[in-house]
Amino acid sequence: MNCWIHEESGGTRWGFKVTDVLYRGKSAYQSIAIVETESFGRVLFLDDIVMLSERWEFVYHDMIAHVPLFVHPSPQNVLIIGGGDGGTAREVLRHPEVEHLDMVEIDGEVVEASRRYLPFTASSLADPRLSLTIGDGLEFVRGAKRRYQVIIVDSTDPAGPSEGLFGEAFYRDVNEALTDDGIVVAQSESPAAVPALFGAYVKIVRGIFPVSLPYLYHTPDYPTGLWSFTFSSKRFHPLNDFRPERVRASGLDTRYYNERIHLSAFDLPSFVNEHLK
Amino acid sequence: MNCWIHEESGGTRWGFKVTDVLYRGKSAYQSIAIVETESFGRVLFLDDIVMLSERWEFVYHDMIAHVPLFVHPSPQNVLIIGGGDGGTAREVLRHPEVEHLDMVEIDGEVVEASRRYLPFTASSLADPRLSLTIGDGLEFVRGAKRRYQVIIVDSTDPAGPSEGLFGEAFYRDVNEALTDDGIVVAQSESPAAVPALFGAYVKIVRGIFPVSLPYLYHTPDYPTGLWSFTFSSKRFHPLNDFRPERVRASGLDTRYYNERIHLSAFDLPSFVNEHLK
Repeated sequence: MNCWIHEESGGTRWGFKVTDVLYRGKSAYQSIAIVETESFGRVLFLDDIVMLSERWEFVYHDMIAHVPLFVHPSPQNVLIIGGGDGGTAREVLRHPEVEHLDMVEIDGEVVEASRRYLPFTASSLADPRLSLTIGDGLEFVRGAKRRYQVIIVDSTDPAGPSEGLFGEAFYRDVNEALTDDGIVVAQSESPAAVPALFGAYVKIVRGIFPVSLPYLYHTPDYPTGLWSFTFSSKRFHPLNDFRPERVRASGLDTRYYNERIHLSAFDLPSFVNEHLK
Repeated sequence: MNCWIHEESGGTRWGFKVTDVLYRGKSAYQSIAIVETESFGRVLFLDDIVMLSERWEFVYHDMIAHVPLFVHPSPQNVLIIGGGDGGTAREVLRHPEVEHLDMVEIDGEVVEASRRYLPFTASSLADPRLSLTIGDGLEFVRGAKRRYQVIIVDSTDPAGPSEGLFGEAFYRDVNEALTDDGIVVAQSESPAAVPALFGAYVKIVRGIFPVSLPYLYHTPDYPTGLWSFTFSSKRFHPLNDFRPERVRASGLDTRYYNERIHLSAFDLPSFVNEHLK
């Protein structure tokens, strides 16, 4: 069988040889597909865009979770917006300082499909410290009953259900839902594939938070391989307030993240700096 | 027209929407194709593998040239093996310390096609400091009449004409052709897409040179986006002997490389370190 699935965007295609189609669905929010591939293991697509592969999801989940959690000295309460596959929750919950994790995913069908077909990420959703809400992240943050040391926005691209998660109004609410020393990290798109989205996102958070720095990682899962998160914060600086000895003392075994990568991820190629001017 | 060209490797595809086919040829060594694409400008393929795009070639050429040339304090004589498109020569020749540049490309048809269709890289080939030889890099190095402060191995993958450029015998000859304080930088494959090739390459150069460190860069041109060069040297260390003030004083305007990237490119994700054990 010579069957291929492609993500098509901006005149490029990124594709995988498919050995089996495990799940196809259409929820109220998006299309969902999970396929078995020849070389990347299981791959989750939402609206025909790659979200993660079994082989490489560790890159994304390491970098979205461990950067803020190794900067904040006592992240007892954490909130994840999105992240229905469970991978971000899995990495957050490896930090014993986290006492309570709220997770708000708009699409219950993503969670169900992940529980069934992506146990390598979704198994974390059974953790007793995790409280999962199927609902709108915008509303959840607006009416938040707790304050969080760390909020992680693990969203799809700014179209469809995630559009509001890239807006200024949402980040004003995030600011309120954070403790006075809180940190928010968000998926902030690719400065190579979609530089305008990346630049627009950083501009919004820079208007709200005193500290706001994008950082980069290489993920083979996404076209161009160059993707970003942005670290925004009321007080802590991701480099000056980072204590590498905490990483060593944690004993956490991570396949992408390490104390050198934490620091160097914030060093941006010149063309990326240009998009931030 | 909905026409696509793909590089297929290891169960993945990386493709571009094509608006025109500018050149197709078959030399004694490989197939050559140059296409106009919708979003990456002109793209050069050798044996159906992407070599460079007009839009992103600066990443590769910045990182192969400026890292060694900003470490060696007086790189008067430089040798490039391969690099028929001219992009590496272009960046090397931006360094005024370079008095003489030898370049040895095995495939004259790559040079001719590049001169005609890729002027953004090939225009450098007219520089009077450049001496171009169409011939076998293995033989050229074995019989080298000069000694070089910097040798750059800008090769295709280790199949076809480039196979010998990944071998131990070649690096013994490179060692001889270098000055006593010489540096060699080479394209050392992707630790994500082809980790076994990457690991094998580093093992070979570590057996010969006292200093040998791989470094990474993100290039949208290649599948997975994560690629490496390796810096090997008889004396200079790429971090300890790097003087960032030289970059500033040079006034060179570079779109990927900068003094922070020079340093952080050597920080490797944990899974890459695993491949080096």
